[in-house]
Parts: sequence; C-alpha cells; structure tokens
Amino acid sequence: MSDRREFLDLVDPAVAREAIASFEFGSESESIPLDDADGRVLAERVDASMDVPGFDRASKDGYAVRAADTVGAGEQRPVELDCVDTVHAGEKPRQSVEPGTCIEVSTGAVCPPGADAVVMVEYTSREGDTVGVRTAVTPGQDVMPAGDDVAAGERALGPGTVLTAREIGLLAALGRKTVPVRVRPRVAIISTGAELVALEESLDVSAGEIYDVNARTIAAGTRDAGGEPQVASRVPDDEAELVIALEDAAADADLVLTSGSTSAGAVDVLADVVDGLGNVAHHGVAIKPGKPTLIGHVGETPYVGLPGYPVSALSIFRTFVAPKIRDAAGRPPLETPRRRATMAERLRYEEGRTRLLPVGLVEDGGGQTLAYTVDKGSGATTSLTRADGVVEMPAERTLLEDGDPVTVELFGSDVTPPRLLGVGEDDPVLSRLLDSVQRVRYLPVGSEAGGRRLVGGIPDVAVVTGDTVDGERLGGWTRRWGLVTTDAAIDGLEDLVDGDYSFVNRTRSGLRTAFDDTVEAFATARGEDMPTVRQAIHGYDQAARGHEAPARRVLDGRAEVGLGLESTATRLGLDFVPLGEQRVHVVASDDRLEKPAVQELRTVLDGDPEWVADFEGVAWEPS
Amino acid sequence: MSDRREFLDLVDPAVAREAIASFEFGSESESIPLDDADGRVLAERVDASMDVPGFDRASKDGYAVRAADTVGAGEQRPVELDCVDTVHAGEKPRQSVEPGTCIEVSTGAVCPPGADAVVMVEYTSREGDTVGVRTAVTPGQDVMPAGDDVAAGERALGPGTVLTAREIGLLAALGRKTVPVRVRPRVAIISTGAELVALEESLDVSAGEIYDVNARTIAAGTRDAGGEPQVASRVPDDEAELVIALEDAAADADLVLTSGSTSAGAVDVLADVVDGLGNVAHHGVAIKPGKPTLIGHVGETPYVGLPGYPVSALSIFRTFVAPKIRDAAGRPPLETPRRRATMAERLRYEEGRTRLLPVGLVEDGGGQTLAYTVDKGSGATTSLTRADGVVEMPAERTLLEDGDPVTVELFGSDVTPPRLLGVGEDDPVLSRLLDSVQRVRYLPVGSEAGGRRLVGGIPDVAVVTGDTVDGERLGGWTRRWGLVTTDAAIDGLEDLVDGDYSFVNRTRSGLRTAFDDTVEAFATARGEDMPTVRQAIHGYDQAARGHEAPARRVLDGRAEVGLGLESTATRLGLDFVPLGEQRVHVVASDDRLEKPAVQELRTVLDGDPEWVADFEGVAWEPS
Repeated sequence: MSDRREFLDLVDPAVAREAIASFEFGSESESIPLDDADGRVLAERVDASMDVPGFDRASKDGYAVRAADTVGAGEQRPVELDCVDTVHAGEKPRQSVEPGTCIEVSTGAVCPPGADAVVMVEYTSREGDTVGVRTAVTPGQDVMPAGDDVAAGERALGPGTVLTAREIGLLAALGRKTVPVRVRPRVAIISTGAELVALEESLDVSAGEIYDVNARTIAAGTRDAGGEPQVASRVPDDEAELVIALEDAAADADLVLTSGSTSAGAVDVLADVVDGLGNVAHHGVAIKPGKPTLIGHVGETPYVGLPGYPVSALSIFRTFVAPKIRDAAGRPPLETPRRRATMAERLRYEEGRTRLLPVGLVEDGGGQTLAYTVDKGSGATTSLTRADGVVEMPAERTLLEDGDPVTVELFGSDVTPPRLLGVGEDDPVLSRLLDSVQRVRYLPVGSEAGGRRLVGGIPDVAVVTGDTVDGERLGGWTRRWGLVTTDAAIDGLEDLVDGDYSFVNRTRSGLRTAFDDTVEAFATARGEDMPTVRQAIHGYDQAARGHEAPARRVLDGRAEVGLGLESTATRLGLDFVPLGEQRVHVVASDDRLEKPAVQELRTVLDGDPEWVADFEGVAWEPS
Repeated sequence: MSDRREFLDLVDPAVAREAIASFEFGSESESIPLDDADGRVLAERVDASMDVPGFDRASKDGYAVRAADTVGAGEQRPVELDCVDTVHAGEKPRQSVEPGTCIEVSTGAVCPPGADAVVMVEYTSREGDTVGVRTAVTPGQDVMPAGDDVAAGERALGPGTVLTAREIGLLAALGRKTVPVRVRPRVAIISTGAELVALEESLDVSAGEIYDVNARTIAAGTRDAGGEPQVASRVPDDEAELVIALEDAAADADLVLTSGSTSAGAVDVLADVVDGLGNVAHHGVAIKPGKPTLIGHVGETPYVGLPGYPVSALSIFRTFVAPKIRDAAGRPPLETPRRRATMAERLRYEEGRTRLLPVGLVEDGGGQTLAYTVDKGSGATTSLTRADGVVEMPAERTLLEDGDPVTVELFGSDVTPPRLLGVGEDDPVLSRLLDSVQRVRYLPVGSEAGGRRLVGGIPDVAVVTGDTVDGERLGGWTRRWGLVTTDAAIDGLEDLVDGDYSFVNRTRSGLRTAFDDTVEAFATARGEDMPTVRQAIHGYDQAARGHEAPARRVLDGRAEVGLGLESTATRLGLDFVPLGEQRVHVVASDDRLEKPAVQELRTVLDGDPEWVADFEGVAWEPS
C-alpha cells in the first residue's frame, strides 16, 4: 500500500510535541479585579503592602490585661481587676489598661493600649465592674500582634501561582482590589469544509451537510487549558477564502488552529495556503489518530492544522496543543490522570505509528477495571462520549491481548467508569428506564450482538428481544410493533407487499428479526418464497439504525411506511398498523449482580413505575 | 475549663453532615445555549432527534462504486470503471453510480445513489475518466451509513451528565442549540461583624477594621461546587440589621450562609435572630476548627452559620456545605484527592473533638512526602495558602508522632507539594530571588528559627543572617541596614538615643539581632548599660514583623524612625542612616541538594542576576 503523496515525511510524535512546545507566545499580563481572578494565574509576585492584622488583635473573647497583674492568679486565688470599658470588634479603644484594671474585649477587637495579653472569659468571673481572673497569663497570650499574619513587605504569593479560593482570601485580606494576572492566550479556531453548518442554520442532509462539532470541542478544550477561544466562522476548502480567514485569525490571535481539510485533495490547498502565508514546518505526524496534522506559522503566528474527525481533532489537541496553551497561560503542566486497567479484548495493529487507542472502562464484579476499545476510526462523534480515556500503544507494539494490563490516560481527573455498562437493543422504554440509574453508558448494538457481548464478559447488562440469554433476567416488558405510516389506507402487511409504497426497514436488530419472521410466515401462508415477497416491498433493503429512524424518515416525507414501535408512532403523531408483540429482557451478567447500579436497575424493574403508562403498546413483565 | 454556655450540646460531625445533606433544594432546571453549557449538568435525558450522519457518508477519499463491480480486482488485474462525476463534501450528488461506473468522492461526501462502497484512492489509478480499481471491496466498505453514529431516537446522554468538551461535541453533532441543565443553586453569603470593611473602602486599623475575606473565599468555593454565589453586604452583629439581611437573603436564595458572629457575645444574637426567623437545629459541632457552627433554617430556607476565622469558615464550608451544593447542582460526589505522607513533627491534642489539622507538604530528598502543621488556630489568613490539605484526627486520638504515616485530604485535585520550601529571614532580595523558582513556599520565621527548622528536617532551605548554619551554603548577599526616617536631622544612633524620636523596632529577626549588637556596642563605648540605652530609645520595645513594616509605619506617620534596610528606604522614598552591613546566607539541607528547585536556586545564586542592581546597598556573595 502506497502512502499518500503529501504525508511522506511523518515526524515522530516527540518532534511534533517539541515543535509546538517551542512556539513563543503568551507572556503578557493584565490587571483584573480580584472578583474575577478565580482560576487565573498570577503574573507577578505580590508582596504585602500593609500589616495583617493592622493592629494588635484580641484572639479570644475576654479581658485585655497587663500580664504582670495576673501573676499568681489561680482557681482558688483569683486576682481582681477593675473593668473600665468594653471594646468590640470594629471599635476604637477609648481608654488604656492601667495597672489593676482591665478592658472587656471581643474576639477580633483592638487590644487596648497598656494591655499586653487577653484572659479568656472562661477563666474569669464578673460582678459589676469587678472581674475575677482565675489564671495567670503571659505577655502576648491570646493577642495576635499587628503583622503577625502577614507583615508589610513580606512575600505573599509568587508569580505563577494559580489563584483559588484560598489565594483570593489572602489577597482580600491584603486589600488587593486588582491583581496582575497572565493574559489568557487567544486561540483562533477555524473549521474548514464546505459541508459544515453552524448550529443556528438548518441542515441539508441530501447535500451531505453536518453540524460543526470541532469548533465547540476545541473551544471548550481551549478554555479548560486556560486559553481564550476565538471561534471564527466556517470556511470552505477554497484557497481565497482560506487566505482571508487565516490572515484575519493570525492578526488577532496568539495561536491559530484549523480543523479539517486534511483529506488528500483538500490538504494540498490548506498546506499551500499556510506555506504561502508563513511556513509549514511539519506535514504529518506518525500517530493514530491524527496523522494528517500540520504544524507551522501563519505570518508570525503559530499554527496547527488539526484533522477533521472530531475524535482525531480532540486527541491531537489534547496531546500536543493543550499543554502548550497551559504553559502559555502560566499554568503548571497537568499531570495526566491515569488508571490501571485490564484489556478485555484482543487487538492487533501493525501500522507502525504510535496509537492513542480510545477505550471505555467498566468495573467487573470484583472491582477490577476493564478497558475495551471504542473508536473504529469511523469519525463517529459518539466515540467522544463513549470513551473514558486512551491507551498509548507504542509504534513497535503490534498486539494487545485480552487480559493484558494497560494504563489508561483518563480524559479528566474526574473521569470514573460509568456505574453501569449496558449493550443491546435500542428501545424507548429502555431509554427511560436507564434514567433511573446515575451515570449509565449504553451501546445500542442490537439484540443479537448485545447477547453475544454479555457472554464476552465486558458489559454489566444486555437488553435482548425474543428469547432471553445466559445470565440473570432482571425484568423486561413487551412492546407492540408494526408499520408506522402517514397513509391511512394501509391496514396490514398485505397492503405493503401488494401496494406501491416506499418503505424503510430497520438494520439488524430484535425488531428487524421480528419483522423478517413475520414476512417469512406471510410468504409461507401465501405459498410464495421469501425473496419474492421481499422484492415486492419497495425499500426492504433500505434499512435505518435506531428504533425511531424509520418513523423519522416517514415524518420527513422521505418514505411512506416504516418499521417501528407503537409508542414511537403515538409520540410522533403517525398512524400505526400492529404486526406483533415482542418481549424485551434486561439480563445481567452473573458476576455483576452485586454492583449497586445493577441492583438499582433490578429494583426499578421489580417495581411498577408510573411512567410505563406513557408508552403505548408496552406491558411491564417483571421477573 | 468550663465550656461556653451556648455550645453545650455539640453534635457529632456525622450528625451535622446529615443535617446539611438533608436540606432540600436545587432540583430546578433551565434551558441554556449550548455555548454556555461547558461544566453544567444535564437536567434531562437527550435523545437524538436526527440521524448522524444524516446521509450515507464516504469515510475515505476515493471512488464510490458498486461493490459487485470490483469482484476479482487485484494489483495485477485492475477492474476499469468509468468515472462519471465528482462529489466533494458538502455537495449534492448529481448522478447515480450505474454498473461499470464510479464517482470520485472526498472524505465526508455523500455516497451517491447506486454506490454501496468506496475504494480508497490509494488502491486506484486513473487515466482521463478511466479508473483502474486494484482491490475488491465489500458492500458498505468505507461508507458510514446514515445514523451509524447516532440514530434518531437513540439515547444520547443521560440526565446528570456533566457536560465537558466531549459531550458538547456530541450535542453539537445532534444540532442541539439549547440544552436543559440543572439550575445552579443560589447561595447567599453574608459576612457579619462590625469590623469588616469592603475591599473598595479604606481601612481604619486603629478601630480594628479588617477586610472581608470570607465573602470571597466562600463565593469562590461555592462557584467551584457548582453553585451561584450571591454575596450580600456585610452586616454588624446588630439584631435589627441581621433580621433584614437574613430575610432578604432567604427570599432569593436556596441556601443562606453567614460567617462570623460566633464569638461568645455575638453568637447569642445571631442564634436568637435565626431562631426567631426559622429555627436553629444544631448549635455547635464537635470538630476543630469549626465548633461554633450553626445549622437551621431562615424561614423555609436552609441556613448554615460558619465561624468567622477564614480557615475555620473555609474548612467547615468544604467539609459540610460544598458536598451539599454539589449534590443540589446535580454533580456527582467529589472524591477527595488524598496523598500519603509522613508526619514530620509531634503533635498532642486532647480536646476530644474531631480535628481537621491543616498541614503543609514537602518532598524530602528521597521523594517521600512530609506533612507539617500550619494553622495555630490564630485566625491567620496566611494559613489559607500555607496549607495543602488537612489530616483528620479522630476525637479519640490524642497523639501524632513524628514519623507517623498520615493521609492528607488535599484541598484540590491539582494540589501538589511546593517544589521548594524555605524558612528564615524576611528579605526583599530573597523575595525577588524566589521568583526565579516555580511554586515556592517561604515561611518568614526569622533567621534564628529558620536555622533551627533546617536542622529539624522539614524545609529544603533556610535563609539566615550573620553566621551560616549546618547544611550547604548555596550563596547569599550582604545588605546595608540602618535607620529609616523622614527626619533629615538624624545622623546616627546617637541622635536616636539622645533625641526625642518615636522609633519602631523589628521583632526577633536577623536584622533585630544586628541592631541589638550595635546598640550594645554603642552602650559599651559610652560606658552605659544596655537597659539605659534601650530605655532612651522611645519605641525600642515597639516591634513590627517583616522587613518593611517599620518603614511603612514611618511612612504612615505612626513613627518617626524605623529599623530597616537601605533598599527599603530607597524604594519607599525615605531617608536612610546606615548602621551596618549584614551577610545573608541561603543554606540547603544536605539531603535536598538533588531537588530540581534547589538546583535552580543554586544556579541563580551562582550567577550574576541583573536585578540585584535594583536593590540599594546589596552586594552579591556567591559561594
């Protein structure tokens, strides 16, 4: 297999990292109000310009005294002092403490002149203005001298300090109204590709339009790293428009990122444009995902061209770009949160590039963490949320065995495995059921594949139709299914076969199996063979994934009849022609029965939830 | 010792936690733009309302073909197809792929009707409109069917999902313009105490005024926990004003917090007011710090009264209140980040309350983490930033031995020990020097205590004056010191002793030692005894902490002459009368020489930094 022309000189990931790390930007500082400083990075040292406290402060409620007056005082031999005044916190003392006298003070009050200690109220008794002191105190006792917390001139916080609640507290104590912080690096984000549409616009799927995902993920990632994203508009892979967009971005930003336009044809245009405006230092990185990454400059402004697939773009951003933004923002390097796991499947890979393998995690019955691969390189956006982190496979490693220990680099410090991993049939009742359990991940792979995977030992539960599978059935329901349509003339399968309707089938799924069985029975009853009947249904091979997808196409007018559930038809306001009822089972792996989330699921399945009534044609079937 | 009247019924920390956890608020939701959703919590399940992709999508650059046409194709036996059109990403196909033809497609383009697979460009060769296909493909190959990523109706994200860059990417792909999220719990924060002053106002230290610290730390902590702080103005411990402030706060907030007014006198007022407006369920918690905590309701609104000392307030907030705010915000419980450490000092404590002991951390030469106590219960705000976490000491444990293993609950997941821990003399050149090293903590305990602590084995370096101490001298400098004044008539010590000037001394420090030695030599030369000379200096016993504090008091007009450094006098524009020069040494503990931060410090001390010239009266003295 020949590699693409334009990526002949793949550089090592370490070279790419170094090239991006050596970009120079981000050392400016600005002064901002203390109230806005949470999470920012101090640009300069802050020394105290005043004493804190600014006065000798009583640390306890009690009496300010001259320590010398209390010598010899004890429980049995109280010393009597004349209380001449009271000073509360926030009050100026009106009198001095002279020998033989004391002044009542509250915690935080100014210790009056003449006094050098405070006797806690607990060690005193008072009658009128006479205070009996039952303990001796030493000079300085329960008095915090001025500047004892921070003295004027002391180094309070160093440059580079990340300001949290605690540092902000200290700065407030020092009376800082504003603080000098590092400017957030401005990161321009350009999404390229004629197929991209802004969220505000409507989508023409017939023209292959898709919503722009990368602008948002990269913007959020930039913010997390301490940068300030500047999302530019989307640009087609057009030379003239790319030039304008890149020049505009470079003029205002510290770093310019593009995503997309790295397919064979488009990348030449992009690389040529960047080369024309500045330089392309590296053209391709020996890493997967992310091979088609560009590194260079637009004018004097550092530039990275990210791949277009969301998982690839975010992976390259996280691995190479985010650390540089953090550094430019003055933040300390992030220690990648890691978790030890056991690989739960076998994986062969021989392309000779470092691979960042997106994996999902699940805890088995013994509390061990299992990892399974998620992204198939398909450009799926669901891979973004179905993975918990990546396993780095070095270029020279070609095989991961089921059972191999791996280290997973988690996507965030608060990433933990979902509490429940389910696989199998896609069903609206199931979707609602899963809302009862916190932090669920569900992979709608269909009934058959779900049953198979449960046996494979990765998921906690599988959701299957028809017959149940090995494992513990936690519960289930029946669902009525049939034809979903806008055409009131259809009464049954016969009309679909004999009429001239456009139909949308389901892909492989429990629902599809039920339909195929029904069609087969219909053919047998008519004395026809299955292929003949199939051919008579216009669109039998036009299959959509997801229980609602055929109904949606009917709703959109792209087809007249779809395979679907009664509850879907009712919800979307479509007509429904029943063809059958099907059992749906929630089955747990025997070794996961003790997991709290599995038990929570069982409790709901054992109960009689009110919301089941919201689903037309569904009957609860507890175990 | 008798306990205070009003805290007789201390409740167990578990009871307090439960009381706060059972507060009911925070289940509302709101719809916000996707752009603002980073970090928010999904209030409802989001199902896909469309297929993603919305069309059969080419996953590679190449040619859309009918798979059947490629049967038998190979490197040596290419199949020739007629290329009839090109479809780029974002374009509507104009033609179908008929048998014997193909259409050129870019990655992301719509797979044209008739085609059921894509042949990668790498496996083709083209001359004019004739494409040689050198490999056989199967139906579906390199085509992502519509809905294969997410199908209409599929469960995309469950309620309770915390939205990060990845979830936002998926929601963007699904075309969600707005998302239903949990409302941030509104937390009213009232600081009580007549001594508190807003940052915008100026401070009258003679009246014991201090800046309000808690409003800012608790607001930042509230934001971190997912709440929305509503900082009310400060209120004196006055019954009528407290009633108004609490009623106002309770009307608009989900939770009302006060801090302060928990000293013996004030707490009765506060508790009575809360009881009058609602109820005080618990009055004191058996925990240190934080005993004077109130728990109850203001009207129907949950209420917690936090202590006034910043460390206590933040500690109680973090331990009891923040978890409830997180929960009400829909966030999963935070796993407290922990770190194993070795206690580096002995600690006895016998008060019979659970103790949350603030500790600082440092890594010793072998990479082991040492913990040392920070807060002395003094109400110091510096304890906020000098601690890295807390060690929980159960009520029944009375002793921590030097060398005991402890578990430190860190203040945040990104808290790591400072790279360098220094102790000793306070000096402006040192403050500047420490800017050269990232993440330094310096405790200005004075020269003598610094030397002692270095021997004690906790800090990495000590900064001492006069003679150096055990350890490795990394470098140092000399500093000219003397009298700092606004009075041009002073020429030397003689004028201070014989004249009628008000003087401010330094507290125990290297500088003070130098001054005392000079005064003693002066006394001897005059044939007078030391006490006589001391008494002649008005203010000899008025000592300020921090190298700049006496100069600041001169500048404020609170004194006429202060003890200080020439560099300070120059910087603050004061006159300076030299009395001597003093050596300052930076000394490292022998077992810490390999620490990178110690080596960085040594490099700077070995060099000839330009900035030394900014300090009048200072001469560099490398080792």
